[in-house]
Amino acid sequence: MTSRPGGRSARVREAVLAAVYAELIDRGYPGLTVEHVAERAGVHKTTVYRRWGTVDGLVADALDHTRETDWRAPDTGTVEGDLIAIAAEVADTFTDPGRRPVVVAVVTAALQSARALDAKRDFYAARHADAAAVVTRAVDRGELPAGTDPVELVRLACAPLYYRVFITGEPVDRSTAERSARAALAAARAGLLG
Amino acid sequence: MTSRPGGRSARVREAVLAAVYAELIDRGYPGLTVEHVAERAGVHKTTVYRRWGTVDGLVADALDHTRETDWRAPDTGTVEGDLIAIAAEVADTFTDPGRRPVVVAVVTAALQSARALDAKRDFYAARHADAAAVVTRAVDRGELPAGTDPVELVRLACAPLYYRVFITGEPVDRSTAERSARAALAAARAGLLG
Repeated sequence: MTSRPGGRSARVREAVLAAVYAELIDRGYPGLTVEHVAERAGVHKTTVYRRWGTVDGLVADALDHTRETDWRAPDTGTVEGDLIAIAAEVADTFTDPGRRPVVVAVVTAALQSARALDAKRDFYAARHADAAAVVTRAVDRGELPAGTDPVELVRLACAPLYYRVFITGEPVDRSTAERSARAALAAARAGLLG
Repeated sequence: MTSRPGGRSARVREAVLAAVYAELIDRGYPGLTVEHVAERAGVHKTTVYRRWGTVDGLVADALDHTRETDWRAPDTGTVEGDLIAIAAEVADTFTDPGRRPVVVAVVTAALQSARALDAKRDFYAARHADAAAVVTRAVDRGELPAGTDPVELVRLACAPLYYRVFITGEPVDRSTAERSARAALAAARAGLLG
C-alpha cells in the first residue's frame, strides 16, 4: 500500500494544523496543548503525540505547511509599488485579529523551542527568497543599481514593522508600511545595498 | 523613620535585580523562578514575593532599573558616526554571550506578560528619546533636512538588527550595524522621514 496525496494521512494533517492555528488564535502559544488540538481536530490525542510529539512539533509543522503554500510576490509594475505591497501585507497581518496572534505565537514558540526556531528560520528564508523577485526584476528594468542585494532590500522594507510590534510595542498601519518600504528603497537607490 | 537612598531596601533591590540578570543569562526566561532569584540574591523568598509578586514583576523591575540607569547617546561629531555607534552598540549586545540572553529574555517575557510588556515599551521609548538627540543635533548642524523625525531615524537604524535576531534568525555583526545605520541615513537625507 502507498500513501496517496489527499488521503487519510493528509486529511489528518490538515485538520490538526487548522486546529493548531485556531488554538493559537484563541489561547496563544502558552495555552497550546496537544489535548486541545486533538479535541478540536476530532482525532485521538495519541495520533497527535505519535506524529508530532509535542506542541513545538505542531508549531513547526504548521509553519512548514504554510511555507509550502504557494505565495507569489506582488507585480505592480514598479519596485516602489511592489515593496509597498509587501510591507502592506505585513502591516495588514498585524492589524488582523485573526492573523496577528499566529505570528506572535510563532515568534514566542521560536524563542523557547529549537524545533520551532528552525521552522521559523526556514519560513522567513523561503518568503524572503520569493519576495526578492521584485528586486531582481527592478534591477533588470534598470530601476535599481546592478548588484543590489535583493533579500537585504526586502529585509529593510519589513524590519521596521516587526520592530514596532515585537520590540518597541508601537502600532503599525498602512502608512508605517509605506514609509518603511520607501525608506528601504532610498537606501537601495543610493547604492548602499550592494 | 524614612527610607534612605542606598539603605537596606535599595541594597536588597540591587542584589535581587543582579540575581535576576544572572538567572536570565544562566537559565533564560522559562527557567526564571522566585526561589532561584531569592537564593542567588541571599534573601528570603517571601521578601521577593512580597515586593515583586511574580517573575514578571522581577523582569519588569529589572527593566525599569536599567532604564533609570544613565545612558548617553554617542557624540562623534557626525550623524553618520553617531548612528553607526548606536547600531554597533545593538550589534555588540547581540554578540555578547552575557548580554544577548537578557534581551532575548525580556522580549520573551513581554510576549507573555502584560507587566513585562509595559516595562519593555517604557524602556525602548526612553532609550529612543535619548538616542534621538543625535538626530536633533544633526538637524541643527544642517546635516539633515529640517523636520526629520528623530525617533523614526533611530528606529530604522536599529530595526534590521532586531529583525535578524528575533524574526529571521540571521546573525548580526558590526558590518550589518553599519549597513543599517547608513541605509536609515539615506532615507533621512532623501527627506523621507519628515
